[in-house]
Amino acid sequence: MNAILTLRILGALLVFLAAALLLPIPFSFYYRDGAALSFLLSAAVSLAVGAALLLNCRSDREFSVREGFAVVTFGWLFYALFGALPFVFSGAIPSYLNAVFETMSGFTTTGSTILTRIEGLPQSILLWRALTHWLGGMGIIVLSLAILPMLGVGGMQLFKAEVPGPTADRLKPRIQDTAKLLWGVYVLLTAVETVLLMAGGMTFFDALCHSFATLATGGFSTRNASVAAYDSAYIDYVITAFMFLAGVNFSLHYYALRGRIREYWRNEEFVFYLLVTFGATALLVFFNHGTVYTSLADNLRFSAFQSTSILTTTGFGTADYETWPVIAQYLLVFLMFIGGCAGSTGGGMKVARILLLFKHAQVQIYRLIHPRAVRLVKLGATPVDREVMQAILGFFALYMGVFVVASFLMAATGMDLVSSGGAVIATLSNIGPGLGTVGPADNFAHVPALGKGVLILCMLLGRLELFTVLVLIFPSFWRR
Amino acid sequence: MNAILTLRILGALLVFLAAALLLPIPFSFYYRDGAALSFLLSAAVSLAVGAALLLNCRSDREFSVREGFAVVTFGWLFYALFGALPFVFSGAIPSYLNAVFETMSGFTTTGSTILTRIEGLPQSILLWRALTHWLGGMGIIVLSLAILPMLGVGGMQLFKAEVPGPTADRLKPRIQDTAKLLWGVYVLLTAVETVLLMAGGMTFFDALCHSFATLATGGFSTRNASVAAYDSAYIDYVITAFMFLAGVNFSLHYYALRGRIREYWRNEEFVFYLLVTFGATALLVFFNHGTVYTSLADNLRFSAFQSTSILTTTGFGTADYETWPVIAQYLLVFLMFIGGCAGSTGGGMKVARILLLFKHAQVQIYRLIHPRAVRLVKLGATPVDREVMQAILGFFALYMGVFVVASFLMAATGMDLVSSGGAVIATLSNIGPGLGTVGPADNFAHVPALGKGVLILCMLLGRLELFTVLVLIFPSFWRR
Repeated sequence: MNAILTLRILGALLVFLAAALLLPIPFSFYYRDGAALSFLLSAAVSLAVGAALLLNCRSDREFSVREGFAVVTFGWLFYALFGALPFVFSGAIPSYLNAVFETMSGFTTTGSTILTRIEGLPQSILLWRALTHWLGGMGIIVLSLAILPMLGVGGMQLFKAEVPGPTADRLKPRIQDTAKLLWGVYVLLTAVETVLLMAGGMTFFDALCHSFATLATGGFSTRNASVAAYDSAYIDYVITAFMFLAGVNFSLHYYALRGRIREYWRNEEFVFYLLVTFGATALLVFFNHGTVYTSLADNLRFSAFQSTSILTTTGFGTADYETWPVIAQYLLVFLMFIGGCAGSTGGGMKVARILLLFKHAQVQIYRLIHPRAVRLVKLGATPVDREVMQAILGFFALYMGVFVVASFLMAATGMDLVSSGGAVIATLSNIGPGLGTVGPADNFAHVPALGKGVLILCMLLGRLELFTVLVLIFPSFWRR
Repeated sequence: MNAILTLRILGALLVFLAAALLLPIPFSFYYRDGAALSFLLSAAVSLAVGAALLLNCRSDREFSVREGFAVVTFGWLFYALFGALPFVFSGAIPSYLNAVFETMSGFTTTGSTILTRIEGLPQSILLWRALTHWLGGMGIIVLSLAILPMLGVGGMQLFKAEVPGPTADRLKPRIQDTAKLLWGVYVLLTAVETVLLMAGGMTFFDALCHSFATLATGGFSTRNASVAAYDSAYIDYVITAFMFLAGVNFSLHYYALRGRIREYWRNEEFVFYLLVTFGATALLVFFNHGTVYTSLADNLRFSAFQSTSILTTTGFGTADYETWPVIAQYLLVFLMFIGGCAGSTGGGMKVARILLLFKHAQVQIYRLIHPRAVRLVKLGATPVDREVMQAILGFFALYMGVFVVASFLMAATGMDLVSSGGAVIATLSNIGPGLGTVGPADNFAHVPALGKGVLILCMLLGRLELFTVLVLIFPSFWRR
């Protein structure tokens, strides 16, 4: 691993973060919320460190796969560490650990919060929270569709073929072009949602923040009661629709905008995702009928919102699902592990991996009956390479392993069984709210410091598909 | 699938069951418990049905892999259905569903009970409960070391090479010889434990029943308070030691008895199993120190017993671990998924599979760093075949899938989240006690009828390594 080259790129990323930290300043002046100086100071610190790295670390070595892993992992870590500064400087979040938790939760598009009162905060701080989501989402789209497939992480190379952009040259220009195309879609969807939410009575500021949080499948709201605060069926359905869209592979949206709408139906992962969304909503409506909701309209509205919010790992809330029947909660826990489609901003294990696990198990059973038959696992019409399948199976085992170990550590801090597991899956799958004492009506403020550290690591591990972070543990990664 | 041939073998198995049903009769006369006629009647019914199948189903077709699956699955099912008769006839368990639950729990060496008061029952009924464990354990040893590897289920073919017995001819005579050798070890260990328990003050009857339940890693006791009723450190340690031995691959015991004791250390699964047992005990001692136990001697005694009981999936209890710190409970839940060694009577996913999952994940990460390096997963010195690794990964995914679906169904009956999951893992891993309302201080009597049906299926699925049962769902299994 070439540390000099890695530090140079991290320096460049910090300079970009400094620029992003200036964005909330106009809002601060407009709302006269007194936080402008905090942002200026944070930008200055980021710029100083970034420029120092950029100027002092010069290397003419080629950028290789190893530096790729280091840049991605430390990039997200640096963004959490420096992006936390305005929260501390403004006094919004006095504890630096809490501020890093909140910022990591933002950039990993998780949406778990340690804030107990959101509405009293400066507007520019609320905008920054939403921006961390939106920028994190941008990072994720490029990461999952262009960088991870190249690094060969956890079977994501399966999606290499689907990415739009020039296919002749597959290196740096490809990443740049892919980024531009997909970010165009991302910006467009954000703008459309903002307009639609304003049409429903939201202020421009609230509409923008919620659109940032939706497209990133983040979940930070500007209101204590999350989306429930607006109490509007129209707003609920608009957000439900855009959460669903944010959980779809962005390549498909790109093709759809170019007129190739049927690409959606030709994509088996999308079809399965659609089925899971509708199936889960139908089941929730069934479970909640008569017990939680008497009106079918209310039932559909809240069930659709919660199932989409959890499946896409957004984590917005319009109802406290911990008051729902146990079976409904169980279904939501199940959805928490699945997550969005590969190439979306959603977290979790990804719909495609779950689909392929099913198919693999099916093929295993089939082989027992027909020992001599050759039957490959396919996604759509494409046979899945054996190596890719092994990577996906390894990913699944590792996901469960991380879940178990992290839950164990949470329980070590004294949290109860359900809350420990709930907090871990909420952060590992980048959802936001969990279960028990970190449920949708609660927050993460009360989690002990050690526990917050574990959860910060979970957010990072889940967001970067585990492998990207875990390779760094191997001594041989650092050698030579 | 040849149904005629399958039914013929099932008939033979029922005739054998009829003979087994006669065994408690001398005890019934000795204790004058009035249940002798119930056993005679049950034996008559089994004999009648068995003989009818044996005489009417004649086939000169060769026995193939498909009939193997059907015989194993329906064999266990028939034993539960007919073995339940004495419970019903004697009035010990009036409900047939409850009796089938108890008997399936016996033959699958699970140990979950629907009985609320055990001590009032006829002695011969208590002996039958223990016998179902012991006979089930016999079945499991042969199944896991001779039959499943041949059927190619879930990577168990990995253990084909380890089995003692003539290696030249690998078919029927091999199964018979293997069975005889390993059953010799099984009977010997049972006898030694019985003598040791009697030396600790147990009656012959209690010692025999507890030895049956220990060697089978079953867990049915003759006392309401399980092993805690004897309140003896000596008895606790004897049972701890034999639970540990029952969780070891019986081939290794066979080799040890032939003087090749170092085979234990050459077996990587055994070494890992030993480490997990000691590691878990040490952690439990640490967690319980000062909080649950003030005396280190007590702490060690109860921690070692509970960790061994859960890891080996026996399920005997000397302490209510639900009153232990959450972190200690979490550790036990973790152990519930692992289970004993392959080729032991223990349930769960098996130590070897967990070990190989770890290694697979490690190799996946290693490959990211060294994309061109070839590194195989090995168990001991043997490289694990790619197909075997795929089967193990498929098994893991399926185990999690069954756990999720079954817990979901349990929650549908109105049970709470922890109890639903606890009941499923307790039965799927063939442990016995679970968590929540089915914890070590409770029983399964209150579970709704639908839930009992789900748990009966879980016991069968877990015991037969999932695949053996699941192949039957495929229509192509039944064709031709």
